Amino acid sequence: MDIESSLRPYIQEVNARLEQLLPSPTEAPEALHEAMRYSCLAPGKRLRPALALICAEATGGTRQEALDVACAIEMIHCFSLIHDDLPAIDNDDLRRGLPTCHVKFGEAVAILAGDALFALAFETVAQQKASPGITVECMKILTASVGSYGLVGGETIDILSEGKPVDAETLEIIHRRKTASLISASCEIGSLFGTSDARQKLKQYGENIGLAFQIADDVLNETGTADQLGKAAGSDRERQKATYPAVYGVEASRAKAIELAQIAVQNVAGLHHQELLAGMAKYSVERLN
Amino acid sequence: MDIESSLRPYIQEVNARLEQLLPSPTEAPEALHEAMRYSCLAPGKRLRPALALICAEATGGTRQEALDVACAIEMIHCFSLIHDDLPAIDNDDLRRGLPTCHVKFGEAVAILAGDALFALAFETVAQQKASPGITVECMKILTASVGSYGLVGGETIDILSEGKPVDAETLEIIHRRKTASLISASCEIGSLFGTSDARQKLKQYGENIGLAFQIADDVLNETGTADQLGKAAGSDRERQKATYPAVYGVEASRAKAIELAQIAVQNVAGLHHQELLAGMAKYSVERLN
Repeated sequence: MDIESSLRPYIQEVNARLEQLLPSPTEAPEALHEAMRYSCLAPGKRLRPALALICAEATGGTRQEALDVACAIEMIHCFSLIHDDLPAIDNDDLRRGLPTCHVKFGEAVAILAGDALFALAFETVAQQKASPGITVECMKILTASVGSYGLVGGETIDILSEGKPVDAETLEIIHRRKTASLISASCEIGSLFGTSDARQKLKQYGENIGLAFQIADDVLNETGTADQLGKAAGSDRERQKATYPAVYGVEASRAKAIELAQIAVQNVAGLHHQELLAGMAKYSVERLN
Repeated sequence: MDIESSLRPYIQEVNARLEQLLPSPTEAPEALHEAMRYSCLAPGKRLRPALALICAEATGGTRQEALDVACAIEMIHCFSLIHDDLPAIDNDDLRRGLPTCHVKFGEAVAILAGDALFALAFETVAQQKASPGITVECMKILTASVGSYGLVGGETIDILSEGKPVDAETLEIIHRRKTASLISASCEIGSLFGTSDARQKLKQYGENIGLAFQIADDVLNETGTADQLGKAAGSDRERQKATYPAVYGVEASRAKAIELAQIAVQNVAGLHHQELLAGMAKYSVERLN
């Protein structure tokens, strides 16, 4: 299965809808709107929104129904990238092959563009056409996945652990919160638009590929080139970040990522779109081969 | 009417519930949770949540029903204060008479504590006991009031206008978005829990006292002492901020704030709690007398 071809129509729909949902750069505050669009429309894998759409279809829903919340998830992902890249946090100059938001627009606008994307994400969910019951359920899953017990909490433990010895348990908490929680939420939210009862399976699937994906990222940061990454290589080691290669070594980390992807494939056995979902699980670690 | 005594029970309920809703400082990430609690439990006027509770009662609802969304509004207010105080934005060291969040916890934790409070605010709304229909309506009002056409957009125009000549129209846009939008949303959201149809009146009331309150703040920043303000006095002028006194002078600004408070009193004529709401309108500018 050519996974990139299979994903293309999903990604195109997400990009087209993001273009509509993001505020116009000709309306005030122009600099803020430009920064939001710059970061959110930059070429990205769109892994999270694609998963939400595929999981909607996998459970008998339509991708159209899940499109707005899928875009909201991508906005949250972009908000977190903008803030993580800030000088006070990861201090990264390059993201998706482009200057980071604060390098391009200054630190103040970057902080506020992240905030505005975060607000727009929740506004997009609130305004979606779904029933109020589904919308509230989307909100519950999404907010829990990004707060201090999710993405933002994971990033905090991550930066506070820099330069310190980190045990395997803490490392897993960081990665589950920082990366797996939003990916898992994307899959679970997609399933809300369907009719079959695969919510728990898809949540598990998302958790597993999310962790696999982050471990693969850690390995690539150690072994890849800036060109492959769209950002500086080896930056994790330089900062003494808590990573799988740092705790387990490169080979064991690679094996762990592949094992998680295999478990993810089992999570979706028997579901509609199982081939595509299995392909995405392999895709999340295939850069390692 | 002794407005402070009348407000006390509302403020006490908000503080007690915030204490419960904020994550425990003994759970990881401890530093993040401490920072969230530090900023959100610091002594504040609790103007916004008090208004939400009073407007719920004014329209025939109960304050208990509106308590969680009222606390969510205060969390959003605190998130915006933390980010606005950052070195890259307003660079303030003192807030509510205490060191600002980044001074106390460092810049990285402060950025992330703001983000986590923002997420917790929406999580609190999503988890409230109201019907899904009311919850989605709360979300729509709240998200529109904080995004790039609300609070965050107002703050952006504000900082990008520093040191530049600002006309009366831009000044009003800044103040309406930065301050009036969340105060107006607080009143409108409160009315969702009631039965009478006073939503538009309360929205207008909130808009008027919000603008009055911000003008009064501008005047006090010019004429007050650090002790009265809980932060440095004269800081707006030093930074060449767009303020009412800078555009209209102190006396005309004072008159404008008082006029807006009087219009606000008319907005709530005939409503239950009209005396309390009128008292709050006067309270928003009474520091000027």
